Amino acid sequence: MELVERPRGGFSVVLVDGQGSGPGAKRTSHHIVNRAAALVAEGARDGAVVRAVHDALYAMRDGQVSATLTLLSADLEAQTLLISQGGSVPVILKVDGEESVRVLKGTERPLGVHVRVRPQVTQLPLKQNQVVVACTDGVVDAGKRLGHPPFGPEGIADCMHTMTSGADAQRLAETILAGAVAADQGRARDDMAVVVLGIVNTEVTSCTRTLALECPF
Amino acid sequence: MELVERPRGGFSVVLVDGQGSGPGAKRTSHHIVNRAAALVAEGARDGAVVRAVHDALYAMRDGQVSATLTLLSADLEAQTLLISQGGSVPVILKVDGEESVRVLKGTERPLGVHVRVRPQVTQLPLKQNQVVVACTDGVVDAGKRLGHPPFGPEGIADCMHTMTSGADAQRLAETILAGAVAADQGRARDDMAVVVLGIVNTEVTSCTRTLALECPF
Repeated sequence: MELVERPRGGFSVVLVDGQGSGPGAKRTSHHIVNRAAALVAEGARDGAVVRAVHDALYAMRDGQVSATLTLLSADLEAQTLLISQGGSVPVILKVDGEESVRVLKGTERPLGVHVRVRPQVTQLPLKQNQVVVACTDGVVDAGKRLGHPPFGPEGIADCMHTMTSGADAQRLAETILAGAVAADQGRARDDMAVVVLGIVNTEVTSCTRTLALECPF
Repeated sequence: MELVERPRGGFSVVLVDGQGSGPGAKRTSHHIVNRAAALVAEGARDGAVVRAVHDALYAMRDGQVSATLTLLSADLEAQTLLISQGGSVPVILKVDGEESVRVLKGTERPLGVHVRVRPQVTQLPLKQNQVVVACTDGVVDAGKRLGHPPFGPEGIADCMHTMTSGADAQRLAETILAGAVAADQGRARDDMAVVVLGIVNTEVTSCTRTLALECPF
């Protein structure tokens, strides 16, 4: 996962899940996510970033390694919210004024293993009271390996509904992650990552940007 | 400012302040910070990153545009804390067991305007109870343009001392920024950014990494 500032204003989050597990998969994911972040930072448009990353992965690993990529962008110049998906991990979206959430299914094919891949790009006006949730398949599939019904987009939607206010993106991410881990009976069976992007109306006390990372080791 | 994961474990923060102000300076800073982040992500070592960024800026802008760069790294593989400076903006460092803070002065010359620049690299073991503060010159020079004594490393050290615990990096960053803005009589006269990197002993309730960005617009 990488967070990057867009050259014409705004931010993008890149979430990549490489095939497999262990150091090799981590290296592939790291490489892809940084390629994507560098392209966004240079000003490439989101759909082109997904295609370029796919082409590079396909060339580099000879079509043998797949990956899923979700790119969420708050583009302040175009005043749009962009959701680009390469792969079948769903993105869940709450739009202001709509009762139920939308589930964006993504593409049938992952990146890296077919000659051509067309990313699924969803574009919305950048308005208040929108919340987007992206995650890895370890989150939506939680419980599946234990023979239970998977956590799924429904589990995520439930977390979004039970939150009285959409203002706290971080708390929502923690709630979703906790729900997925619980569905896996307390131990994640696959890599889990959750990204929540909220455009919310809060009391702005200053024009300061804050970024905080906590990394236990 | 960019935050990037290191390929062999750990994180780096890149803080760049390009010469001048306005969209042109912002573009230069954005370009440099992303070059540096991409190099770190590829595995280049920190000193080499600063040199490469300097060379690129010098070549691209023909020695006419300067920039300062501070690169803070928590390298989990080598178990070191690395502080690389290109330019004369000081970095303030609190080491466990030492009564007073250390002030790392950086290099006399900024990046971009001389043929050769040697970054100042400080290396420490990655131990608990260390706090590093990096900032832009707008923070340390706050108050100067109004004819007052500048906020300076002393102002930052005061903030570090008054915090009873070093555990809350975010609160320390906010305190320093507020102090610098106050020294500029309530309105920042230059771009201000503060980075606090703390290696602290907290109650770890989970092994989850969290990253949170808040960006008012």
